[in-house]
Amino acid sequence: MSIELTRLPSGLVVITDNMPHLETASLGVWVGAGSRDEAPEENGISHFLEHMAFKGTTRRTARQISEEIESVGGDINAATGVETTAYYARVLKDDVPLALDVLSDILSEPLFDPDDLNREKNVIIQEIGASEDTPDDIIFEQLQATAYPDQPVGRTIMGTRQTVRSFDRKQLRAYLTRNYRSPGMVVGAAGAVNHQAIVEEVQRRFSPFDGPAAPPPQPAQFVGGTSIEKRDLEQVHVALGFEGVKQGDPASHSLQVFANILGGGMSSRLFQEVREIRGLCYTVYAFHAPYKDTGMFAMYAGTDPNDLEELMRVCVDEIVKAVDTITEAEVKRAQIQMKAGLLMSLESSGSRAEQLARQMIIYGRPIPIEEIVKKIEAVTVDSVQAAGRGLLSRARPAVSVLGPGQRLESAAAIAETLVRRVA
Amino acid sequence: MSIELTRLPSGLVVITDNMPHLETASLGVWVGAGSRDEAPEENGISHFLEHMAFKGTTRRTARQISEEIESVGGDINAATGVETTAYYARVLKDDVPLALDVLSDILSEPLFDPDDLNREKNVIIQEIGASEDTPDDIIFEQLQATAYPDQPVGRTIMGTRQTVRSFDRKQLRAYLTRNYRSPGMVVGAAGAVNHQAIVEEVQRRFSPFDGPAAPPPQPAQFVGGTSIEKRDLEQVHVALGFEGVKQGDPASHSLQVFANILGGGMSSRLFQEVREIRGLCYTVYAFHAPYKDTGMFAMYAGTDPNDLEELMRVCVDEIVKAVDTITEAEVKRAQIQMKAGLLMSLESSGSRAEQLARQMIIYGRPIPIEEIVKKIEAVTVDSVQAAGRGLLSRARPAVSVLGPGQRLESAAAIAETLVRRVA
Repeated sequence: MSIELTRLPSGLVVITDNMPHLETASLGVWVGAGSRDEAPEENGISHFLEHMAFKGTTRRTARQISEEIESVGGDINAATGVETTAYYARVLKDDVPLALDVLSDILSEPLFDPDDLNREKNVIIQEIGASEDTPDDIIFEQLQATAYPDQPVGRTIMGTRQTVRSFDRKQLRAYLTRNYRSPGMVVGAAGAVNHQAIVEEVQRRFSPFDGPAAPPPQPAQFVGGTSIEKRDLEQVHVALGFEGVKQGDPASHSLQVFANILGGGMSSRLFQEVREIRGLCYTVYAFHAPYKDTGMFAMYAGTDPNDLEELMRVCVDEIVKAVDTITEAEVKRAQIQMKAGLLMSLESSGSRAEQLARQMIIYGRPIPIEEIVKKIEAVTVDSVQAAGRGLLSRARPAVSVLGPGQRLESAAAIAETLVRRVA
Repeated sequence: MSIELTRLPSGLVVITDNMPHLETASLGVWVGAGSRDEAPEENGISHFLEHMAFKGTTRRTARQISEEIESVGGDINAATGVETTAYYARVLKDDVPLALDVLSDILSEPLFDPDDLNREKNVIIQEIGASEDTPDDIIFEQLQATAYPDQPVGRTIMGTRQTVRSFDRKQLRAYLTRNYRSPGMVVGAAGAVNHQAIVEEVQRRFSPFDGPAAPPPQPAQFVGGTSIEKRDLEQVHVALGFEGVKQGDPASHSLQVFANILGGGMSSRLFQEVREIRGLCYTVYAFHAPYKDTGMFAMYAGTDPNDLEELMRVCVDEIVKAVDTITEAEVKRAQIQMKAGLLMSLESSGSRAEQLARQMIIYGRPIPIEEIVKKIEAVTVDSVQAAGRGLLSRARPAVSVLGPGQRLESAAAIAETLVRRVA
């Protein structure tokens, strides 16, 4: 391991991992703010800002931003999440200073030209349209909204056509100034990188973000309920959400093991029972997504409208049953999978840079691999079952159903009833 | 470079690349057969076989197949294409023999139990349903069918509900025996691998595939035309296809550069004109997919129904204009991008194993990086323009439009007219 960390006086952190056998580098800026840091009328502005960052600065036109990176063979991109926004690039080793220059430029000096603003609103409205045409996207937006109604965490990351149309330069500047602050920002890099050189570049370029930390977001409250959308599709898409645990919660590794056993791979219970034994679906899985102060444990499956009630019954049954019947062998397999996955991710410079940056934002320090391994190994059958039991007892589940047929409501009711009987 | 190659007496090739700094390995079996090797009534059987391979062998149940790999922290998966089918795994270095054992077992001793067959038909019918609910999938299936009507290359990889329902054990065995033959199979591996150990494992395990080479597929003929599907969606999805060139064609690198300049990244002409200048779409790109004896050059965009005719005009205009106006600077940028992309892909064991296996299947030898670089560097403005001109002159284009609105036909006609004027 060759992790180096520098915390600048402003609070901004530079964290790097030199991987000496590589010729390329992955690097980026992670900002600890996303859609949940938006006021209701700002819904979608984190994502809009992420788009506008690429639309020109005082030093570069939009075309120059992409051309400067792509003409050295690099890639540059960005992604907006609920709690973080990331801007990242992959380049050959000699081009790291250029990539840092471009990344800092687009974040610190964006122009927000009114014509560009209007054009980019159209682009995002097309992005919203594309997402609405994709059931896999919509079902999770609905699940999130049902789990966290009328809360920033429950709103879509892209916002609505209405909020997107309403944004102006002043709002963008206000959001940027409020949330892109050094104490909540991390520059992460891995691969063919030199820590000291990156620190020097960052010192030179990232001072515009100096200032007090961004305000914390409004606390989230998992509420749950049912959302149903009838749509003329081939499949009925189903997502079930349960209140998980927050980042760093003592139960988080046990819950991760539970998610893995229930729906993490081909040997998982859901895959075996729903797909292999019953042939009810092509896709079925479960995962846990922890946030600062809450967590979303979710299951997804797509099925034939005629099989919907059976699918719903089996999915709920599997989660309920798992709480009492998880075995030593399953826990062991999940632990090994998680440890091997960790090892595999270390071999990619992109995953490595992202892991380190996210650990800094969430925990304020890089988490040594040995420490993660130790926590995974400390998981027991009892702790996994307890983590599963927690899901069923904390809050009412969120149930989302999207598709054709007459029985969407009754299928959703099955889920609610089965879970309530246990809780 | 540490590529080692062994051709067994049966014709089966083992090709490995040891990457000494890695702790994990990627490996797989690539079979030079796919959906275009199917008779009309077999449409979808390559993909069905790929599914059935995981459903149990004389030595392992379906559950054991996934559990054996996942309980050592590995992943196993497969993918069916038009001309190749791949079965691959990623594991820790000590588990390479286990992965090879499982991969050879599922290909050589599949059970094809009648109950499993029926269940898996349901799973695939759900997979077809999920794909039909995804406009991005459907539009390319339509494009392929329009470019190559009534030909294996033009049929969907998954087949139809009707063909899938008709398959039986006898057909599966016949397809397997005909197409999974050592002279057309490659075992590729990269990462923490030892060539000789893999060769020994393969010698022990892959003899069931010995025999004469699989018969070559029926030649493909790019025909073109228009396909339109009205559907109640948010966006109109548009794909345009032009006859490209085959694998190994002297023009293939020039055409790749043309695709890159036209629609390969954020600095590409389509991205700049359609998204950045006009704000007409979120997604727009172009690519070239070469096959044994033909090639598909395609462009995709999704837009608002009201902007469809403008989008169509601009897209066609950009490809037509590019043929005469591509610049030295653009060619240079594309060349650097392709070379950097090559370097980046070398850092991933999965990409490396796949590249080597595909090169063996397509060219019969591993292509040294320096040779690829030399070919990229030999591309000139003239050769790129000539490659673009070839697209417009060879065959009638294929035009696919999917979405809402009254003007799908007239928009499709715009594309045909504009291209014909040039050709």
